[in-house]
Amino acid sequence: MNLSTNTTAIQAGARAACWLGVLLTGVPAGTTETALTPQWEPVAPGVWKATIGSPEDLTLLNAAGQAPRREALAGMPAATFPLAETEIEARLQARRTALRFPLALDEDIYGLGVDFGTLRRTGSVFQLHVDHWSGRPGRTHAPVPLYLSTHGYGVLVDSARYLDVHVGLGVRLAAQDKPPVIDRTTGGRLWSSRPRSDSVEIAVPAAGAVVYVFAGPTPLDAVRRYNLFCGGGALPPKWGLGFLTRTPIAYTAQQALAEVDAFRQRGIPLDMLGLEPGWQDQAYPCSFEWDKSRFPDPAGFLAELEQRHVRANLWFNPYVAPTAPLYGRLLPFAGSHLVWNGIVPDYSLAEPRRVFADHVRKTIVGLNPVAVGGFKVDEVDGGDQWMWPDHAAFPSGHDGEQLRQTYGLFLQRTLMEVFRGLNRRTLGQVRGTNAGASPFPFVLYNDNYNFDEFITAVANTSFAGVLWSPEVRAGTGEDMLRRVQAVCFSPLALFNGWATDTKLWTHAEVAGQIRDVIMLRQRLLPYWYTTFAQYHYQGTPVIRAMPLIPGFKAPAASAEAGSLDATVNPYAIGKVVEVKDQYLVGDVLLVAPIAPGVASRKVTLPAGRWYDFYTGQLAGGNETIEVTPPLTQIPLFVKEGGLIPLTDERQWAPGRDEAVPLEIRHYGESAGELSLYDDDGETFDYERGEFSWTKLQVAKDASGAWHGQVTPEKDVRPWRYTTVMWRFMTTPAPPH
Amino acid sequence: MNLSTNTTAIQAGARAACWLGVLLTGVPAGTTETALTPQWEPVAPGVWKATIGSPEDLTLLNAAGQAPRREALAGMPAATFPLAETEIEARLQARRTALRFPLALDEDIYGLGVDFGTLRRTGSVFQLHVDHWSGRPGRTHAPVPLYLSTHGYGVLVDSARYLDVHVGLGVRLAAQDKPPVIDRTTGGRLWSSRPRSDSVEIAVPAAGAVVYVFAGPTPLDAVRRYNLFCGGGALPPKWGLGFLTRTPIAYTAQQALAEVDAFRQRGIPLDMLGLEPGWQDQAYPCSFEWDKSRFPDPAGFLAELEQRHVRANLWFNPYVAPTAPLYGRLLPFAGSHLVWNGIVPDYSLAEPRRVFADHVRKTIVGLNPVAVGGFKVDEVDGGDQWMWPDHAAFPSGHDGEQLRQTYGLFLQRTLMEVFRGLNRRTLGQVRGTNAGASPFPFVLYNDNYNFDEFITAVANTSFAGVLWSPEVRAGTGEDMLRRVQAVCFSPLALFNGWATDTKLWTHAEVAGQIRDVIMLRQRLLPYWYTTFAQYHYQGTPVIRAMPLIPGFKAPAASAEAGSLDATVNPYAIGKVVEVKDQYLVGDVLLVAPIAPGVASRKVTLPAGRWYDFYTGQLAGGNETIEVTPPLTQIPLFVKEGGLIPLTDERQWAPGRDEAVPLEIRHYGESAGELSLYDDDGETFDYERGEFSWTKLQVAKDASGAWHGQVTPEKDVRPWRYTTVMWRFMTTPAPPH
Repeated sequence: MNLSTNTTAIQAGARAACWLGVLLTGVPAGTTETALTPQWEPVAPGVWKATIGSPEDLTLLNAAGQAPRREALAGMPAATFPLAETEIEARLQARRTALRFPLALDEDIYGLGVDFGTLRRTGSVFQLHVDHWSGRPGRTHAPVPLYLSTHGYGVLVDSARYLDVHVGLGVRLAAQDKPPVIDRTTGGRLWSSRPRSDSVEIAVPAAGAVVYVFAGPTPLDAVRRYNLFCGGGALPPKWGLGFLTRTPIAYTAQQALAEVDAFRQRGIPLDMLGLEPGWQDQAYPCSFEWDKSRFPDPAGFLAELEQRHVRANLWFNPYVAPTAPLYGRLLPFAGSHLVWNGIVPDYSLAEPRRVFADHVRKTIVGLNPVAVGGFKVDEVDGGDQWMWPDHAAFPSGHDGEQLRQTYGLFLQRTLMEVFRGLNRRTLGQVRGTNAGASPFPFVLYNDNYNFDEFITAVANTSFAGVLWSPEVRAGTGEDMLRRVQAVCFSPLALFNGWATDTKLWTHAEVAGQIRDVIMLRQRLLPYWYTTFAQYHYQGTPVIRAMPLIPGFKAPAASAEAGSLDATVNPYAIGKVVEVKDQYLVGDVLLVAPIAPGVASRKVTLPAGRWYDFYTGQLAGGNETIEVTPPLTQIPLFVKEGGLIPLTDERQWAPGRDEAVPLEIRHYGESAGELSLYDDDGETFDYERGEFSWTKLQVAKDASGAWHGQVTPEKDVRPWRYTTVMWRFMTTPAPPH
Repeated sequence: MNLSTNTTAIQAGARAACWLGVLLTGVPAGTTETALTPQWEPVAPGVWKATIGSPEDLTLLNAAGQAPRREALAGMPAATFPLAETEIEARLQARRTALRFPLALDEDIYGLGVDFGTLRRTGSVFQLHVDHWSGRPGRTHAPVPLYLSTHGYGVLVDSARYLDVHVGLGVRLAAQDKPPVIDRTTGGRLWSSRPRSDSVEIAVPAAGAVVYVFAGPTPLDAVRRYNLFCGGGALPPKWGLGFLTRTPIAYTAQQALAEVDAFRQRGIPLDMLGLEPGWQDQAYPCSFEWDKSRFPDPAGFLAELEQRHVRANLWFNPYVAPTAPLYGRLLPFAGSHLVWNGIVPDYSLAEPRRVFADHVRKTIVGLNPVAVGGFKVDEVDGGDQWMWPDHAAFPSGHDGEQLRQTYGLFLQRTLMEVFRGLNRRTLGQVRGTNAGASPFPFVLYNDNYNFDEFITAVANTSFAGVLWSPEVRAGTGEDMLRRVQAVCFSPLALFNGWATDTKLWTHAEVAGQIRDVIMLRQRLLPYWYTTFAQYHYQGTPVIRAMPLIPGFKAPAASAEAGSLDATVNPYAIGKVVEVKDQYLVGDVLLVAPIAPGVASRKVTLPAGRWYDFYTGQLAGGNETIEVTPPLTQIPLFVKEGGLIPLTDERQWAPGRDEAVPLEIRHYGESAGELSLYDDDGETFDYERGEFSWTKLQVAKDASGAWHGQVTPEKDVRPWRYTTVMWRFMTTPAPPH
């Protein structure tokens, strides 16, 4: 706390003078801040770290606790430090550490958490704060303090505090090139309520901060380095890429099994069954014990699920009820405040994490490690009305603010370690996370139900090393169909029936179409699985927002000037036009969800040529087109030369020793290539080398006919496909 | 900063042990916080102060810089400390000071800043932060950290920081009576997403805090003590209670004078003319110099205004343009960041305040101290997009957060001192303020245009020692009429035409009715002036929200249970039912504004009998009635026995030596009494005793006929009325 005695706070080369004193003469020497130029040390190829002042022990990456994928990082291009070091400044103040990074006039910033309203962050001010999204920028389920620049680098402020962020706003008196001074009365549209600054400024309310810089050369490369530095992206089990349905809150074992049977009878694929609070005998706060009236024989129930090739996903929130057997063991680690009258264990300490993991392993997962697939970790985000206050005290010495920023991280880490210990992969849901979470196989969700915001959030995950899925809960037939289409092209395909009588088949007029899109999702498993493998091994995000796509030059990021209006727009604020309602899944598949109630939409295609997924016909390239798809279709486009691998129609994901037929679709006029990933799909054996990348190639022969070729890696490892069928979508093979 | 060496932080009697350590055994001793029981010292009758830890030098009351009205406080009833001292706890943490005050289950909390959504604060969590209101609780133009309890006391946390406030939420593990643990699956409506806590908790992000407690016995008494402790309420000049119109931004002197003439020709009262940015030659940022193209002869223009009995009110924002003559003198005191490319002088220092005051006095007010009535101090609130960041550095050593919380206070104080130095009262507008502002004759405003929120804000000012006025800017005829009616029964009656061609007479069908309500406002000057005198001398708020009214037992503050809905209300949150759309002005006048587009409304009448202002007929008492007023009338009710003094019809407020006729209306069946205040209405001579309270009494004589009586104070001081006419509204005098 006492900066003046902490000599490590002043790095070598620091300008230890009063910052204002340097700038201005005659200023009263009241200010006690110290300005310094951070010193950067390389910590991995293309990754640099600066330790500024006296950072707190608990950082986000420490909370996540995962090791960098150094080999993969070493395989990336060499890079030099991407910023002008002397342009980066840290000021150690009494209440905070203020960081300043340069921002060029032609530079735009993305990232800084999974926002639901916008992708582009240039020209905005907000506080990064784990919370339920409710329209306040910065308050989100994943306020990851990582930003990506269109100039091709990334910056992570690794602090478990609420960070105040100014992106291109807040012109400094010391700035070299200040915006012009305009008289508002006569300046008209020359005057701006938000003059552009030359900085990204981030305030850390602590006596120091740890900062990382990630080189490019492209923003996508910078994200890749970030994900690899965090340990690589999550690799879910194959069944985790199937379909999940959640049952109503008070369903019994019988009702839950009947729900599975209803899916099977209707031919709707199903891999995961979500049990909501009612599986426990006390929830909000939780007992972490099966409710014996609704689930009299949990092991028997799980065996039934296993027989049906379905994994249970068990809901909980982490607040421990006084009646829980765990209570006594966790009470010594409880924070000063309760949530829904349950204690809040201090999971920043290893011992309560061990206590909780033991309980989960022994009494829940241990009942049937095949059938218990994972957990839904609820209520680790907000809102402030029910969470512990920031001033809550915890036995570790961390305060409520630090725990709020990291609670989801600690729970994901704890649960992943439980499953790793059993050598079984998991796929779960979590409602709050933060930086360092890339390796965690947990998908974010929330209670928001705004379709457009859902899609923007999915796109924003690509800048944050996290996964997010919209929800389908209820609605009219068309509403549900459009939402199911969207979730099927998000990281987790699910229906959440926890508080409704509505089923996927309630609306007969769309039931078949709902089944069809879930089946398409199921068939696309090889494409999704390879895309996740790219995330894991190469750090490349599963979802890729348009600004990450090379050659994407769209109407993005241009600000419309606003019109002055005395009652509704007194500051004449314009709105930002950007393409935030479409994204790529993997390398070649462009997804442009259609909102309920909407008949047509614009799609902005990047450079090159793009083809309709369903017909193979040319859709366009480097242009914005209008599409009016049938109700049965979510607009999908494939890049020139793209290969899309599919399985046959299946009700659940292939098991670990199951081989299935493969269909490979080729789009466009050019040759194409895909490295298809495979492993056993269920265990961590891939970490011991049990995986394969198989080269799929399509090219024309001398006669102009298309041919496909499968080239296994030299050392043939897991490859679980039987037959291969090639389909040339744009140029069908002539009949023989 | 170093708590451990600051022995003054630990008060006598403090429990200097680790708080969690006291509570729980076996807790790792990681937490470094210190818990203590604050010690309270009486600082005025019924006012106690505690200094906890090491508070910062800059507090809100220090920023306001006004002296308590000790004599008036001494005249209030003696009182004992209203809380259980041992139930108040302070915990000194590394990043903040956490305060806990007891809250009984049957206790409700009001205040904590001028919120626009709700009056009652029990069951809410928010951060007090000077900002433009945009729907975020706590972010408001007046985040005054004062709360009032229905148990009859008040608490002020006198800190210039953003304060996190939990009112009745955040149950502590250490709490004696915790809410019951309910299983959400089976508990139905017994389960609550927001279990009630036994505390008000306020976190101050500093190493200490200054706290005041104000005794009752009623909440109104506690507000009175607060206002008196701050220096007593503002006493505006009489002309400040007339009507203000603001001209379009680029109006010339000629156009402005023509606007005044248009009011006079139409017989619409006018006392103040607001000039918007265009009176300066550079605005946003500002030059503080007249624009010579639009105002070639400022002194001549002001003389013309004086001749017309109109005061100029001059807009500015405090950010200084590089072209301003003031710039060079203020640059040494500039903060590290600009606002609209203007410097932000550090007005927490006396020297730049003196520089600014000199300029204002010499070059603006000094041109004509009669005609320059005051200023509109804009843009001292927010939003974050254009204000300096919290980490901005200022020469005083204060940071951006502290300046944000106090900037409006410093400017009000500076301007009031300019006018006081000239012995002329002022009435201005300001867009951001805080605790300690009671004596400042400035009325808050903003760009929000939601009618219902306007009215709730006016009501909430009664808990905050500030004044607030809705705005009328444009709209249809009915919309404008309803809004004019509302502003005429708010502290400042104004039309703001800064960005519109619309005038008050644009809609011919309502022009006469708009004139009539402004005339009614003008005629009610004696009532308003006495009400402001009560604010000044007795601390009693001008506006009184219903919870402050003795005998008000309404459907207030009961929470409706919410209904679970999967897509729109997953936490089954109820809404609070309270009466936030009506209030009293002064002792006896109940105002129930009608929103545009609404034909009827409910009015909740307190205990006793209440009479229609217009007809004198009994409206009811201790009940909720439905009223359907004509378009010409804003619903107004007068308490049993109430006296309402009015002048004749006038185009502007009486001058200092002008005597006018008085009409006194009596309502109801009971005798009534009013102490009518008067002074010269323009200067500070009242501070030297130049004022009078005159007793007006109405009673029945032996024959049952009503009689009115005027009893001057023994030592007759200013009394500027000629004739007195009595009107018995409910029981007219029988014809003689």
